[in-house]
Amino acid sequence: MTSEQKNEEFVLSIRPSTQNDVKSTWTLQECPKPTITKENEFIIQTLYVSVDPYLSSGIKKSALGGAVNPIGSVQVSGLVGRVIESRNSTYPVDTIVLGRLPWRRYILANGTELRLRIVQKATDKDTIYDKVGLSTAVGVLGMPSQTAYYGILSVANTQSTDVLVVSGAAGAVGTIAGQLAKKVRGAKKVIGIAGGQKKCDYLVNELGFDAAIDYKEYNTKEKIIDRLNQLAPEGITQYFDNTGGFVTEAIFDIIQRHGKIIICGQISTYNNSEEDPAKANVHPNYLAKTVYRGLSILGFVVSDFMHRNDEEFFKDMPNWLNQGTIKFNETFVDGFENLPRAYEMLFTGENIGKIVVKV
Amino acid sequence: MTSEQKNEEFVLSIRPSTQNDVKSTWTLQECPKPTITKENEFIIQTLYVSVDPYLSSGIKKSALGGAVNPIGSVQVSGLVGRVIESRNSTYPVDTIVLGRLPWRRYILANGTELRLRIVQKATDKDTIYDKVGLSTAVGVLGMPSQTAYYGILSVANTQSTDVLVVSGAAGAVGTIAGQLAKKVRGAKKVIGIAGGQKKCDYLVNELGFDAAIDYKEYNTKEKIIDRLNQLAPEGITQYFDNTGGFVTEAIFDIIQRHGKIIICGQISTYNNSEEDPAKANVHPNYLAKTVYRGLSILGFVVSDFMHRNDEEFFKDMPNWLNQGTIKFNETFVDGFENLPRAYEMLFTGENIGKIVVKV
Repeated sequence: MTSEQKNEEFVLSIRPSTQNDVKSTWTLQECPKPTITKENEFIIQTLYVSVDPYLSSGIKKSALGGAVNPIGSVQVSGLVGRVIESRNSTYPVDTIVLGRLPWRRYILANGTELRLRIVQKATDKDTIYDKVGLSTAVGVLGMPSQTAYYGILSVANTQSTDVLVVSGAAGAVGTIAGQLAKKVRGAKKVIGIAGGQKKCDYLVNELGFDAAIDYKEYNTKEKIIDRLNQLAPEGITQYFDNTGGFVTEAIFDIIQRHGKIIICGQISTYNNSEEDPAKANVHPNYLAKTVYRGLSILGFVVSDFMHRNDEEFFKDMPNWLNQGTIKFNETFVDGFENLPRAYEMLFTGENIGKIVVKV
Repeated sequence: MTSEQKNEEFVLSIRPSTQNDVKSTWTLQECPKPTITKENEFIIQTLYVSVDPYLSSGIKKSALGGAVNPIGSVQVSGLVGRVIESRNSTYPVDTIVLGRLPWRRYILANGTELRLRIVQKATDKDTIYDKVGLSTAVGVLGMPSQTAYYGILSVANTQSTDVLVVSGAAGAVGTIAGQLAKKVRGAKKVIGIAGGQKKCDYLVNELGFDAAIDYKEYNTKEKIIDRLNQLAPEGITQYFDNTGGFVTEAIFDIIQRHGKIIICGQISTYNNSEEDPAKANVHPNYLAKTVYRGLSILGFVVSDFMHRNDEEFFKDMPNWLNQGTIKFNETFVDGFENLPRAYEMLFTGENIGKIVVKV
């Protein structure tokens, strides 16, 4: 068997309970290369694999809830591949597909797979993907960007009078969320929270955020509060939260009356070790803090909005990319074998924009 | 000085940090009986004093936030009194007034006091108060009932398809909130959570709740979950929270997708002792729990709605009382000197409906 023919997969091997465990989450193992035996089957060669923070909810019991995958099961995530063999007329050879698919180099499919979608037909010419790359099907034209889109345009419904703070601002969702608020909705002020000066400079100089705060420098709730009070003396009206933690605690103390707190994620809590993940950290009584200021906390999940994609997201986002309104960055990690490392990078914060594993 | 002429007041003496401290919160002391010396002044004789859970936020630093009163300051709350001397033509003798007023037997006023309002003019005949009593100006025709009114009709906006759970259901707010949801909005099901079988029977037999759960019997999160699953197998769509604590934790685990959690109060946390009241208990990461189910947490404070009272609350509630649609109960505590005891009863849960001190 040549290296090209070899098939490999990642199976869940442990439930990480500390940050250090994360890199051992999966084991790489050889597996049979698939062969077509039935009508409608086709084989996908994996091109790009998405790693996303929400995967943690399937890896171990999490405060997010959701079903936990069995140890030994093949990991699944957003994945872009090319059809290389086919007995399915909808998915002929050279079709580019996207789906929630197993972490394998070669995947047997039959068209019934979860959220399977054609990114590009073999006959398509001059598509948006020719300009921005096929990897964007799991990035700025995929789930993370859809999360930002519905989060800002529907859930937050940001207006020109709003002063918005985004945590996890340099990530795949945060970079787009901040830009949509600023450039599409004309928010009065958009402030990103990110880890490191390089990311902060990127947000302001490249993406047009009004300001950014390095939470590694302003590393306590009190420091964040002081800095936000300097940067937004008029007061914060909206907070788009990807992280939780002390940044979120700071916001709860200073957000304006009738402010909106949009909960997209709580990445700072996903690798906690306690038995009851809901109590893995000592969380403040956020509920009590909503009363006197009449705050709204709005959780949302992008899957509730995906039925609107054809009429909304896929009409708008390609235009905004073509016009240069929305900018994006991808951090590529080369090699299928580096999937666990790429996932770990989500939590160590080494990326700017979307992390994609290029197989 | 005769007993009738003697004036007394309650001043803040300690900041209670346990349930046992609560009764020592204030000290009773003599003070001068007021005399009118200027135009527009008048003297109010206190008739009924309201004790309410929110007072805790002025007594000590609280997760609710809000300004903390100095030790030695006279306590203020909702209070109904009769004008007994007056040089103010708007408030002649025998006018019944309501306001946020100091805990004194006799109060000097001039008409500029916070939320001062005429309950009944000396010349008024056949008012709703003749039927339901002047004490209701701090109860079913006052702030607690307004809280329930805007909480259910505006914030929750309960519909006939909703299954609503109310915590603190036998209290001044909860009794009215549950009835409004059931009788005015025709909610599919209303379940109250209260302490003790007597209260639970009252909610179901007298007020028309569909069911009630005694949290002293179902005294863990798991037991509450099991009981709610029995009583509402169709699933809970709304939760009106007055208490926080394990009941609230239970709801977060089982409320339906796109459920609404309305935060009216968190009384179970108000007498906590920790230095940082926001972290006084180990609270779950409620924020993470909002994501996958797209939950909304809506905090509100009645003062944001009071400008609508004349057009809404005071048009509706007297009618509903006259028609017998909305029922209410008051727990009277006799004697000005028993104000601290009445306040303590809020936390020990001895009352059904509104607690009012009758002076």
